[in-house]
Amino acid sequence: MDKILRIDMGAKGGPKASEAELGDYAGMGGRGLTSAIVSREVPPLCHPLSADNKLVIAPGLLSGTIAANSGRISIGCKSPLTGGIKESNAGGQAAQVLARLGYAAIVLEGEPGDDNLYKVVINKDGVKIEADNSLKMLGNYDLIDKIKEAYGEKVACISIGPAGEMKLTAASIACTDMEQRPTRHAGRGGVGAVMGAKGVKVIVLDDAGMKMRPPKDPEKFKEANKVWVEGLRKHPVTGEGLPAYGTNVLTNVVNEAGALPTRNFRFGRFEGASKVSGETEAEIETARGGMATHGCHAGCVIRCSGVYHDKDGHYMTKQPEYETIWAHGAHCEIDDLDAIAMMDRLEDDYGLDTIEMGVTIGLAMEAGLAEFGDAEAAINLVKEVGKGTPLGRVLGSGAAVTGQVYGLEKVPVVKKQALPAYDPRAVQGIGVTYATSTMGADHTAGYAVTANVLQVGGNVDPLKPEGQIELSRNLQVATAVIDSLGMCLFIAFATLDQPETFQALVDMVNAFYGLSLNDEDVVDLGKSILTSEREFNKKAGFTAADDRLPEFFKKDSLPPHNVTFEVKDEELDSVFNW
Amino acid sequence: MDKILRIDMGAKGGPKASEAELGDYAGMGGRGLTSAIVSREVPPLCHPLSADNKLVIAPGLLSGTIAANSGRISIGCKSPLTGGIKESNAGGQAAQVLARLGYAAIVLEGEPGDDNLYKVVINKDGVKIEADNSLKMLGNYDLIDKIKEAYGEKVACISIGPAGEMKLTAASIACTDMEQRPTRHAGRGGVGAVMGAKGVKVIVLDDAGMKMRPPKDPEKFKEANKVWVEGLRKHPVTGEGLPAYGTNVLTNVVNEAGALPTRNFRFGRFEGASKVSGETEAEIETARGGMATHGCHAGCVIRCSGVYHDKDGHYMTKQPEYETIWAHGAHCEIDDLDAIAMMDRLEDDYGLDTIEMGVTIGLAMEAGLAEFGDAEAAINLVKEVGKGTPLGRVLGSGAAVTGQVYGLEKVPVVKKQALPAYDPRAVQGIGVTYATSTMGADHTAGYAVTANVLQVGGNVDPLKPEGQIELSRNLQVATAVIDSLGMCLFIAFATLDQPETFQALVDMVNAFYGLSLNDEDVVDLGKSILTSEREFNKKAGFTAADDRLPEFFKKDSLPPHNVTFEVKDEELDSVFNW
Repeated sequence: MDKILRIDMGAKGGPKASEAELGDYAGMGGRGLTSAIVSREVPPLCHPLSADNKLVIAPGLLSGTIAANSGRISIGCKSPLTGGIKESNAGGQAAQVLARLGYAAIVLEGEPGDDNLYKVVINKDGVKIEADNSLKMLGNYDLIDKIKEAYGEKVACISIGPAGEMKLTAASIACTDMEQRPTRHAGRGGVGAVMGAKGVKVIVLDDAGMKMRPPKDPEKFKEANKVWVEGLRKHPVTGEGLPAYGTNVLTNVVNEAGALPTRNFRFGRFEGASKVSGETEAEIETARGGMATHGCHAGCVIRCSGVYHDKDGHYMTKQPEYETIWAHGAHCEIDDLDAIAMMDRLEDDYGLDTIEMGVTIGLAMEAGLAEFGDAEAAINLVKEVGKGTPLGRVLGSGAAVTGQVYGLEKVPVVKKQALPAYDPRAVQGIGVTYATSTMGADHTAGYAVTANVLQVGGNVDPLKPEGQIELSRNLQVATAVIDSLGMCLFIAFATLDQPETFQALVDMVNAFYGLSLNDEDVVDLGKSILTSEREFNKKAGFTAADDRLPEFFKKDSLPPHNVTFEVKDEELDSVFNW
Repeated sequence: MDKILRIDMGAKGGPKASEAELGDYAGMGGRGLTSAIVSREVPPLCHPLSADNKLVIAPGLLSGTIAANSGRISIGCKSPLTGGIKESNAGGQAAQVLARLGYAAIVLEGEPGDDNLYKVVINKDGVKIEADNSLKMLGNYDLIDKIKEAYGEKVACISIGPAGEMKLTAASIACTDMEQRPTRHAGRGGVGAVMGAKGVKVIVLDDAGMKMRPPKDPEKFKEANKVWVEGLRKHPVTGEGLPAYGTNVLTNVVNEAGALPTRNFRFGRFEGASKVSGETEAEIETARGGMATHGCHAGCVIRCSGVYHDKDGHYMTKQPEYETIWAHGAHCEIDDLDAIAMMDRLEDDYGLDTIEMGVTIGLAMEAGLAEFGDAEAAINLVKEVGKGTPLGRVLGSGAAVTGQVYGLEKVPVVKKQALPAYDPRAVQGIGVTYATSTMGADHTAGYAVTANVLQVGGNVDPLKPEGQIELSRNLQVATAVIDSLGMCLFIAFATLDQPETFQALVDMVNAFYGLSLNDEDVVDLGKSILTSEREFNKKAGFTAADDRLPEFFKKDSLPPHNVTFEVKDEELDSVFNW
């Protein structure tokens, strides 16, 4: 993992690959590397769909090793949705396989001068780039079926669906899971549109003949990983809640907390919550022969994923995540899990961010295009995107555009990115993260739900402004590091609560790379990543005015706690003062 | 004109009007007043369609007097298109009538709590606000017919069409002309959407029984106006070119200069230019019994307007302006005047900015929704907006949204507002104005075409960066003053070239208000307006990054001169350094 593969899609005579040492980027991985390349090499004022933008795909520093849960892949660029820097990461097999192929990053550059759609195949023998227009407008599922036929059952794929080809700003990039299903998405910020603008449909990664990456100190590494695994297994969230019910374990918890945004952020509790909860979901999955517990990539010991079958017992989609369930569920007042699973399936197939899409469907309801609660109408709205109709293109452009096109006033976005599944009035810490994250509204960027609701890593009253800045700041710093290691964010629960688990993670990095980092070094790494991202955004025109929630969160109080967002603007502006 | 009429559309028990003295706003008019009220009273981060935004309608300081060409009305708000401050002004009768009714401004505030559509009627007896849902979704022409039936042939109207009701961000506000046709529009920045959000369909202004506003020094005022009128009549642009051929006199001139943006800013000359030129237009108008010379408001001595009839000699629309002809013509490679006039008619009727719409249709062609040059397809695209289809709503949201929804890279906007009819590479001075104006891309904000192309007010090589900053700066300052006086921008030609005409204007202001302003005071006024607008925009999140042209103007050279935009970023940042 000491090379960067650059593919110039606009090279004379057709796309051309070249490899180089890491050079200035040595020691970087995942989000640290994608953000470094974007902030150093992409002109902040370029059009995100232009030749000047770059799509950087980087496994984490520990990906491709035996370290448990190190399978996240970071995808970075200038976002066509937010206009700022973007790193969106996904699970699945791609990170491990790409890392074992020896690449710290693939960088797609330039833009093809023709209308061809390209396929990139990388294996131990090198890189092949070929036009394959038979792939045009294929859904991710059909695409992967074709790839399987040609390249077998073991390759990992990174691909876009029709949404990415249409360059829609809610387009995601799909990564295949262990069963070669295109279900793990780098969802946020329209990264799929940038891949579409580069003319690349799919990157096929084949690590046959390649080995697990070797640590500098194999013994210490193995030992640290053992403590690491034990830590993840013994924490109640990663050892019990997540495996049993998946991320959707949160529906009942957040609903109970009065923080489940319902009917486009009007209420904090949803009547139909129990019908779409993780508990109900697991029951249905088990009853229909799906799976309630499943890992999205080899080496995962949390196994928060699952497999969702239809009523006839046939595979429909991976277990829809909490955010997906919320966006299509409470936000739209839909309490029908099968309908939500169908939308999840369609969105994975078209290649769309399920958060952005669910929020957008709720806005379409707000605009009168469908009734709140009408599941069939919601499914049909998603299908519009697949058909590429004008309405579909609007919806596929996300919440901010849909709000503008339909003249809506209540549009829950920050930096034009749709808010996720926690109302910032009832979880004020996550409100700070939504407002200030370099990424736009993003729960994963500093998941303050931990101390606000779950009582993990401390306990900060979710309804009050006190303590939220520090909480969000610390989590944003820590997350930047986690996203650089290739670690699944869920490891945070155990590392926040169990000092020895955190230490095991540091030990793994040190043993793998022959380093002697301490806590402070880790914090510094996180800060430096955030600083480079903030610098890019500043040059792209972002100011403190962009670090704000929509005004209605300050004005309209949220039942049942009847709270508004109380963190002051000046406090928000202090998040990155260190 | 010493009162402000405030209408609180969200008052308990229904909309409520109240009057107050000017107070802190004394001495302000037109753009100076709209920008002062918006920058002091509207929260910069509010949603433009929310109750917090205000729509300010203000005649100029000399409106309602006998001063020639003082009939511009300024309409200001936070723009739903740009997100910044907006002043868009229009001709027609409204400014004179409103001024004579004694109002320095009407301010629409709040938002109605119901779905009613309101009509506001103002006459010598006071203000009446009533719900009239029979007006819903009427085009401006049908609306005005109804108003005429009810209120007679002498009232002036300020109204929105279906586009404003749909809150589309390309929606304009129409003002009736002398023949009570809704043809003079405050077009830019989506002001119509804000009027729609306020729930007001039409403001009927009836000045029966009211008198011309009296000057403090009637003799001096009369004398100054005489010199003023002579000055306007003797300048070749305002005395000959504009009356004979209207604003469209520019098509041949700008085409000759290689600066007529063609096929979405790919070329600087359009093969079909002569077919849509002012000369051809005047010929057609005369031949069909329309009018080639006509004033848009009483008291105009330039008379650059006209009346365009269809092939059968029936009224179709007012003489389409140069900007309209360009946007639907060269930009879309359409050389059919009748088709362009039809689109002008439709857009006036729906209440749409013809610049924004024409540019957007060109982008729809870029996206493959129609062929460049296909006039019938273009007309059908405009009709989509009237129907309120999803496609129509996208187009009616303007160029930036359409570019995003269709994944386009070449989107000619600044601050999300579409560029007007002069390529900034071949008229670099106007490029400086487009980039730096507080309004977004706006030719009227600092019309450097004067010295760059027309050799009015000096002579600055249009193809080189030298001298453009100063040129644009001075014009932006002067324009802010002109827009505050209620003066038509075209008076600038004579005041730039003829010192005595400029002096006559200052003399009129002094005589009317009993002041003794000198040149320096006038410049200071302009600067203070721009400063308050810049301040608002800064608080709304604008930075130097927003004062830039799209990157392709710096990269792709424009034939026939094969030039790129050469003014440096640092220079752009110096425009407001005084």
